[in-house]
Amino acid sequence: MREVFQQELAEVQTRLVSISEAVETAIKLSHEALHSSDVQLAEKVIASDVNIDEQVDSLDEYSIDIMARQGPVARDLRIVVSSLRISASLERMGDLARHIATLSRYRFPEEVVPGTLAETFREMGQLDIQIAGLLVELLKTESVDVGDRIRQLDDEVDALHQRVFDVVLSDDWNEPSTVTVDMVLGSRYHERFADHAVSIAKKMNYLATGEWTEAEDDAE
Amino acid sequence: MREVFQQELAEVQTRLVSISEAVETAIKLSHEALHSSDVQLAEKVIASDVNIDEQVDSLDEYSIDIMARQGPVARDLRIVVSSLRISASLERMGDLARHIATLSRYRFPEEVVPGTLAETFREMGQLDIQIAGLLVELLKTESVDVGDRIRQLDDEVDALHQRVFDVVLSDDWNEPSTVTVDMVLGSRYHERFADHAVSIAKKMNYLATGEWTEAEDDAE
Repeated sequence: MREVFQQELAEVQTRLVSISEAVETAIKLSHEALHSSDVQLAEKVIASDVNIDEQVDSLDEYSIDIMARQGPVARDLRIVVSSLRISASLERMGDLARHIATLSRYRFPEEVVPGTLAETFREMGQLDIQIAGLLVELLKTESVDVGDRIRQLDDEVDALHQRVFDVVLSDDWNEPSTVTVDMVLGSRYHERFADHAVSIAKKMNYLATGEWTEAEDDAE
Repeated sequence: MREVFQQELAEVQTRLVSISEAVETAIKLSHEALHSSDVQLAEKVIASDVNIDEQVDSLDEYSIDIMARQGPVARDLRIVVSSLRISASLERMGDLARHIATLSRYRFPEEVVPGTLAETFREMGQLDIQIAGLLVELLKTESVDVGDRIRQLDDEVDALHQRVFDVVLSDDWNEPSTVTVDMVLGSRYHERFADHAVSIAKKMNYLATGEWTEAEDDAE
């Protein structure tokens, strides 16, 4: 009985890792779609977000079922509670990748990102992809170092997000409002994506220590 | 023992209601600050968000403690699981009210919302306030009708959010980028605020029925 229970907890972790891999794929493809104006790729990211949502719902039901049947305590309880909270963040990260893809689809066949901001968005996208990769590693290993690395990269994303605002609000900015709107939203999606990863790192910290501090810091 | 447990579950509900009341106050004051350019009011909303975060953290710890001590099942388990998920949404709603207040603080002493969009933002803010009030009622009564009403108002918020984009992207729009940026972000904060209320209504539905469908719909 005890052995079955441990297998179930391992299954929770396996499924979280699998969802985080789907999120990593989504952000990679949405980044590619954004910079190549590849509308088919954008459609693919948009369509596949449903799969992430379904995996999240299914995992949540599984976690709640474990709670009801096994009445877990201590670290075992923290695993299932963390799973519920982490899955919610992963679901939002999938949504944000979808939003980035949607920007490409709307503007097709035009480029979404103008030349002045191309490099900034490319860096921001690369950082989000790196963060998503680290998240997979974090969920596999529970490494505190990986969590710290995610926080560092999030700081870099925040700096780039700020740079987008600086450019858009500078006197040299002559793009039409359509572009301003896309840049502001696109930048925010990238920034929120990284925020959720930091939030997951905090939740993993709770799993390790039992210390609960949840408040997300997304001041801007 | 059983009686203590029931009191604890009632306490969870009481605290959720209390947090939702704090969120209602926050959105009311941030709305007022936005339209009166009252910087002190804006500061007040920004400062008080910490209290919401603390209440949320404390409630989460309490819910997890109940799970560990009481091993709840069926509806009792759903109450504590729902509480964890609802508290996360309430925390984000507090953040969004704070973001709206931050817009006022940044632009002070200038008006944030230009004349062409004043009415739209006023309506959107009033809808968010109404939604926050209904949320308090929903958490108190678990009424399905109140949940449905929240969804209807959310549709109205979505329509106004779309109107903001239409105005900002029209040929008549001659405001500087600063204003465009504020309008896009401000509108998105209002829209997300309402989304989270709908998400809570879904979670309350889970509480009532045990049916779990989580995916938030915030396509734009």
